[in-house]
Amino acid sequence: MAPSGSSPHASPATSLSRTETLSLVSLSGASLAILANTFHGDGEPLIASLSLSLVAFSLCYAMIRWLGPTFIKAGFRGRDLSKVNSAELPECMGSVCAAVYLITVIIFIPFPFYKDIVAATSGGGNRDVVVEIHHANEGRFLHRFPHNKLASYLGAIISLQTIALLGIGDDLFDIRWRHKWWIPGLASIPLLVVYFVDFDVTSIVIPVPLQPFLGDLFDLGFLYYVYMACVAMFCPQSINMLAGINGIEVSQCIVVSLLIAFNDCLYLFTPYPHPATDSHLFSLYFLLPWIGVSVALLAHNWYPAKVFVGDTYCYFSGMVFAVVGILGHFSKTLGLLLVPQLFNFLYSCPQIFGLIPCPRHRLPKFNARSGLLEPSITPWSPDRQPHPLVGKALHLLHRLRLLRVTTDEAGLFVETSNLTLLNLWLVWRGPLKENRLAWEVTLLQLGVGLFGLFVRHKLALLIFKEDNWGSTGQH
Amino acid sequence: MAPSGSSPHASPATSLSRTETLSLVSLSGASLAILANTFHGDGEPLIASLSLSLVAFSLCYAMIRWLGPTFIKAGFRGRDLSKVNSAELPECMGSVCAAVYLITVIIFIPFPFYKDIVAATSGGGNRDVVVEIHHANEGRFLHRFPHNKLASYLGAIISLQTIALLGIGDDLFDIRWRHKWWIPGLASIPLLVVYFVDFDVTSIVIPVPLQPFLGDLFDLGFLYYVYMACVAMFCPQSINMLAGINGIEVSQCIVVSLLIAFNDCLYLFTPYPHPATDSHLFSLYFLLPWIGVSVALLAHNWYPAKVFVGDTYCYFSGMVFAVVGILGHFSKTLGLLLVPQLFNFLYSCPQIFGLIPCPRHRLPKFNARSGLLEPSITPWSPDRQPHPLVGKALHLLHRLRLLRVTTDEAGLFVETSNLTLLNLWLVWRGPLKENRLAWEVTLLQLGVGLFGLFVRHKLALLIFKEDNWGSTGQH
Repeated sequence: MAPSGSSPHASPATSLSRTETLSLVSLSGASLAILANTFHGDGEPLIASLSLSLVAFSLCYAMIRWLGPTFIKAGFRGRDLSKVNSAELPECMGSVCAAVYLITVIIFIPFPFYKDIVAATSGGGNRDVVVEIHHANEGRFLHRFPHNKLASYLGAIISLQTIALLGIGDDLFDIRWRHKWWIPGLASIPLLVVYFVDFDVTSIVIPVPLQPFLGDLFDLGFLYYVYMACVAMFCPQSINMLAGINGIEVSQCIVVSLLIAFNDCLYLFTPYPHPATDSHLFSLYFLLPWIGVSVALLAHNWYPAKVFVGDTYCYFSGMVFAVVGILGHFSKTLGLLLVPQLFNFLYSCPQIFGLIPCPRHRLPKFNARSGLLEPSITPWSPDRQPHPLVGKALHLLHRLRLLRVTTDEAGLFVETSNLTLLNLWLVWRGPLKENRLAWEVTLLQLGVGLFGLFVRHKLALLIFKEDNWGSTGQH
Repeated sequence: MAPSGSSPHASPATSLSRTETLSLVSLSGASLAILANTFHGDGEPLIASLSLSLVAFSLCYAMIRWLGPTFIKAGFRGRDLSKVNSAELPECMGSVCAAVYLITVIIFIPFPFYKDIVAATSGGGNRDVVVEIHHANEGRFLHRFPHNKLASYLGAIISLQTIALLGIGDDLFDIRWRHKWWIPGLASIPLLVVYFVDFDVTSIVIPVPLQPFLGDLFDLGFLYYVYMACVAMFCPQSINMLAGINGIEVSQCIVVSLLIAFNDCLYLFTPYPHPATDSHLFSLYFLLPWIGVSVALLAHNWYPAKVFVGDTYCYFSGMVFAVVGILGHFSKTLGLLLVPQLFNFLYSCPQIFGLIPCPRHRLPKFNARSGLLEPSITPWSPDRQPHPLVGKALHLLHRLRLLRVTTDEAGLFVETSNLTLLNLWLVWRGPLKENRLAWEVTLLQLGVGLFGLFVRHKLALLIFKEDNWGSTGQH
């Protein structure tokens, strides 16, 4: 699996440099050596996951480079709208990430699960003699993992493969926006079905102030599935909407992944065994390889981009978050990490629902003279002015500095900036270089996410009786 | 899910006729009504699977019709080489089958598994109290299904999704033949990994005459995985190779599916409970929906074809057979049903391995004057004659009536028929109309398969101590 050897193409853009080859080969070699070492003793699935993620990074880095011409030839290509002279670049490279990621998580299956099988059955796959499995939950052994998690793990893979299939279908057939919305919903079916078969826990913990009225736990029943489907639909779409400049899709996903992983670590390295350890190990097993392949993609997609990511990447990434959030039972925490995406979605609603005209592309406008990005605008002609109520709302937003509105002497609307977070950031900060804008929004994501985690762990005790740090899980 | 309503396109080729719509809607309605009835009492997963398969048939039938123009627009199109005036037809319609099939088997998950979960745990997903699960294996209740099969079921779905992804990749990027060979091998990884984690039984039963030397059971260990990977690689490729005329890919798959399903029924309707019941129920759950979507495809792909199936269909279908054969532990029986494919593969080897030149297409030649198909040929020029040994072999095959060889007066090779079963059949039977050839080869498949099953169940006792009809399973 080490990306050794050189590509048959001699062009520098499609083959690895000697330094790159050497680095990737030695990184993969070291990772595989560590991986081989985890077979000794009881196994260390977390270390194994980390090593496999590094191998996935190397493989993905090399494959993105090698497959560029193949993708262009197959028609997956596009031009960069924010560059002066842009060559045709390969599109949909997120599908390479998805493929490498899927291979990684599939190959990883035996690491956390095999030891338990040997312990929990009388060996040789003979399942007639079931010895007590539940003792595995008691001790604090990171290498132990309950076998009943295997079905969840497989269900998660099925959901991710479904979103990959649908994402590729979207990239191929250019599905209409209205239909696109349902794609992640369809992909969440396997997840929900496995959840139904395997857990079917549909109660939520009620905040303390409401407990006198609703009790400690409230069984949502069928609505819990609707809620999970909504989470699975929101994550991919909201990430797909915060897009349009080099690197921003990937960098936001890496930040969110790192924050979730950080949150997971809070549960793993507590001074005493935490009951939610399994859920958070589960989450790490899915996130680490995704961080690996995303970093490989970012190296090619960061300004100036040499490849584009395609819808597949955004859908897939959102689904990874939804999967770990749902099966790890921390979908509310996940929401706190996606606040910028949530804001971007709500802010976009007037254009999505047609209150304000929505052009095909709303990405920031590239000013070829200054080389900077400026907010893109929606023009208004004197014949076609917004509804008076909408006009008032636009003026209000302008006064709140949440929109840039230009009017003529008669007070008629001439143009308004498009309603996306990127445009709003440019309204606030003035014209920026593309990579500068990507950096700033990425840091915003990081800051908001860290604050969200702070709120989650320090302030949640005000409205919930017990935090996850307490003795009861949030199940 | 009922394919009601009419397509926005008015053209008769892309929308359903009134009769078709009515039939499909009433079929789906009746199936859904039956499905709803299976919720009463203990549930009847086999009936549920049958109803879902009928719904899948209706949905697939309608979607193939509706999506034709979309596929043509996206570049999935081709011309029929065996017709006088062929319009461009949509290609890769097998991917629609695969998509509908995957949705069906995913939605089906709760039917066989849910009741057991309720019985086997203390309810509400609480897995701390594990009551005896293995009693479920004792009685003869078709509605009971052991929970440990859930992981196998999910693993099978992952393998099938992987082959769908890879098949679409193949259809998109036109992967070279040499690399194609490995695609099903890659897709078998999930299956093997889940097998490893969940069963890891690697012993085979030794035929009686060899038992004094090798013992009753022989543990193949790692080699058993190689064997399974080979099965998974052989099935898709061999089906992909027996192709080239309208309908033949689909009709052979339907025949093989029906034969496996017939074999499964032999185990279900025995006078006494059979220990392999579970494996064969498992097999039926995967085969019935596949028969449903395949019949829908055949209706459009049979002579004269209105759509083409694409590599995705052949790969996917082969993988369905490999999955049920491997996880149902009847891969040897499966081999008996694929004898025509095996023959076609072996017969093709001289051209595959370059002993005889291999043109890009080896499908039978269409004679536009007579409207009949004739064997296609490999031409030999006087400068480029086969190696003397190969020449001798060709003459021998000619004498055995396994090849048509034409030589000039000097004894030099002028042309030889291409080495495929379809061409050989035309050598034997003379020029045939395309649909006649497809019928005859399909009936050949059926006859050989029925004979194979007869051998399996009546003659296997001569070399194995116990048949599956006996008291021990073939695990």
